[in-house]
Amino acid sequence: MTTSTSISVSAPAPANHVYRVCLIGSGGLGTIASLVLVKSGHAHVTVVLRSKYKYITEHGWDIDSIDHGKIQGWRPHRIVASVADAAVNGSEKVEFDYVVVCTKHLPGRHSVSAMIAPVMTAGRTTVVLIQNGLGIEDEIVTAWPSNTVMSGVSHIGSGVEEPNKVVQVGRDVSKVGVHYGLSSVATCSSSSPNPSEIEGVTKTETDLAKIDKRAKSRAKAEAYVAMYNAGGAHKCELVEDIETARWVKLVWNGTFNTVCALTRSSVGELQRSKGREALLVPMMWEIWRIAAASGHPLPETLVKHEAYRLPDDCAYRPSMMLDLENGRPLELDVILGNPLKVARRLGVETPIMDVVYNLLLVESWKMEQRAH
Amino acid sequence: MTTSTSISVSAPAPANHVYRVCLIGSGGLGTIASLVLVKSGHAHVTVVLRSKYKYITEHGWDIDSIDHGKIQGWRPHRIVASVADAAVNGSEKVEFDYVVVCTKHLPGRHSVSAMIAPVMTAGRTTVVLIQNGLGIEDEIVTAWPSNTVMSGVSHIGSGVEEPNKVVQVGRDVSKVGVHYGLSSVATCSSSSPNPSEIEGVTKTETDLAKIDKRAKSRAKAEAYVAMYNAGGAHKCELVEDIETARWVKLVWNGTFNTVCALTRSSVGELQRSKGREALLVPMMWEIWRIAAASGHPLPETLVKHEAYRLPDDCAYRPSMMLDLENGRPLELDVILGNPLKVARRLGVETPIMDVVYNLLLVESWKMEQRAH
Repeated sequence: MTTSTSISVSAPAPANHVYRVCLIGSGGLGTIASLVLVKSGHAHVTVVLRSKYKYITEHGWDIDSIDHGKIQGWRPHRIVASVADAAVNGSEKVEFDYVVVCTKHLPGRHSVSAMIAPVMTAGRTTVVLIQNGLGIEDEIVTAWPSNTVMSGVSHIGSGVEEPNKVVQVGRDVSKVGVHYGLSSVATCSSSSPNPSEIEGVTKTETDLAKIDKRAKSRAKAEAYVAMYNAGGAHKCELVEDIETARWVKLVWNGTFNTVCALTRSSVGELQRSKGREALLVPMMWEIWRIAAASGHPLPETLVKHEAYRLPDDCAYRPSMMLDLENGRPLELDVILGNPLKVARRLGVETPIMDVVYNLLLVESWKMEQRAH
Repeated sequence: MTTSTSISVSAPAPANHVYRVCLIGSGGLGTIASLVLVKSGHAHVTVVLRSKYKYITEHGWDIDSIDHGKIQGWRPHRIVASVADAAVNGSEKVEFDYVVVCTKHLPGRHSVSAMIAPVMTAGRTTVVLIQNGLGIEDEIVTAWPSNTVMSGVSHIGSGVEEPNKVVQVGRDVSKVGVHYGLSSVATCSSSSPNPSEIEGVTKTETDLAKIDKRAKSRAKAEAYVAMYNAGGAHKCELVEDIETARWVKLVWNGTFNTVCALTRSSVGELQRSKGREALLVPMMWEIWRIAAASGHPLPETLVKHEAYRLPDDCAYRPSMMLDLENGRPLELDVILGNPLKVARRLGVETPIMDVVYNLLLVESWKMEQRAH
């Protein structure tokens, strides 16, 4: 078990404190996260498993992990079949400190804020969204204004082999941070000041309350990160500006992930076909320009770095491609739809993203027809 | 057997004259064309069949045609296994009046001008290209400057069911015309006058020779059209400006055909998904603007007509989609690549076509890799 070496956290969890954690969505990423939280010794972890509830209750997970080695028949502290079941233990209402959401984010299909309602305690429960895309926190911030909302971008490489094997080949590296207000998707009209910029103005009572909430939110985030690193994650980093980190991730995820899906290509195929130069690099610059226009300037070197960091023989088939091949819903709204909303509002031109988005909408529509 | 009702042709084929025709590429379109030419009574038709030579020689074609009814075991006058074989009959060199090319046009793979060389007689043989796309005639016009080069756009709906069944569900409606010079793809720099506009200037000896060649070319085209209509085609129309007709066809073929391929959608699926409004209509306008800029203005009503002429339950799966699904090379160069060359030279912006083209290039590249 390793401890955090990557960040300095000012308020680590008290040595003996155990947080109540509810984790929803136990795929490749969620199962490793639940393992890390259990291993930390600072969490009692309830995992919500819907379709797999019976099988995992009986057999547990067989884990083969670059960070944690091989573990047979592993189970978290408690497994439940629904979020409602997580909220009660016997006749007792469970109050959670953290609700960690590792599901796909599909706003057109279901609302995360409604889904988590049974396990939320106003003013207490911190929401941690480990999900792709942009603007995912807005509905939570709006629905739970007195709660801390965090999100994380994960670079883990981990997948499930049915029925119960989790294979983690890429180390568990992530950045997490607090959302102190709404995202660019909701606020980028730029007439309203960003709540995170409020410290420089004259402090009214409301301002002071906000600053107090910020401090408390930050402490909760620090405790979460300390716990996560204590559980043997490779590197979980607390960042001040998680929205910028989300834009950074989007530079790869909004381009390779979507275009691989559309052309049914692996990352390496797309690179060798010259699709990288013709499509991905200019598409990355579109995302770069939206981020900059919305107050999240990214380094100039980022595009080249993201476009060329993987080898040309990389056989990786990104998540949206696997979803498309398996007829599962695509996370198109949060990965391309929301950035495009920001672009439209700020007048940033996005000719490639527009076409890729509209083509994937056709694919999504077809999958919905087949599902009905 | 019907005769032409749709056009007035000033120089019909002499009643008893029989032209020597070599037809290359006997798929759904080519086989019906060979049937029509044989039925006309004015052609001796040699068909080049490569992979199917042995089977069709033995069994013939089983044809089920909206224009011609059901015919079992049909064969043209002569079947050969290669273009070289077509050129000789015993020890005798065959001089063809018409070489009709119904293959796909894949300039990256093989040159049509080289392919037809064995059956060409300089100054005599007229080439008729019944193929998709734009700029297909340029290499023929360049390689065979003393020959007449015609092309046709066909709206036939006809396909092959392996091994030897041809099912024609859409009537054989086509427009053909003569290429008096190079296409927009080769000439749209606009500094060189279009040879078809030369009649208004002072006539030098060269000009007069050109006018004489035009008259002879036109007579050959008229004879071909008269013959084709005599063979029971639903409607074969001789048009003055075949390049404009090719742009008209491209408005549908460059958009529905390519986007259906990319999204693996039927025409009806694409329409119902709203992909028509988001992608196809603005993409059609891009083609419309390139055509206009290159001196081929199309009617304003054309885009709406082409976008909405097929019903929303249309199950038609266009040719490029079938090629993609079956791992066959895509006619991307002539359907999108050449129009895009014209657009670049004339400064017409084509953001949607660019992306669709580059995405299909990725698909093409992948198919080539698999073929090697």
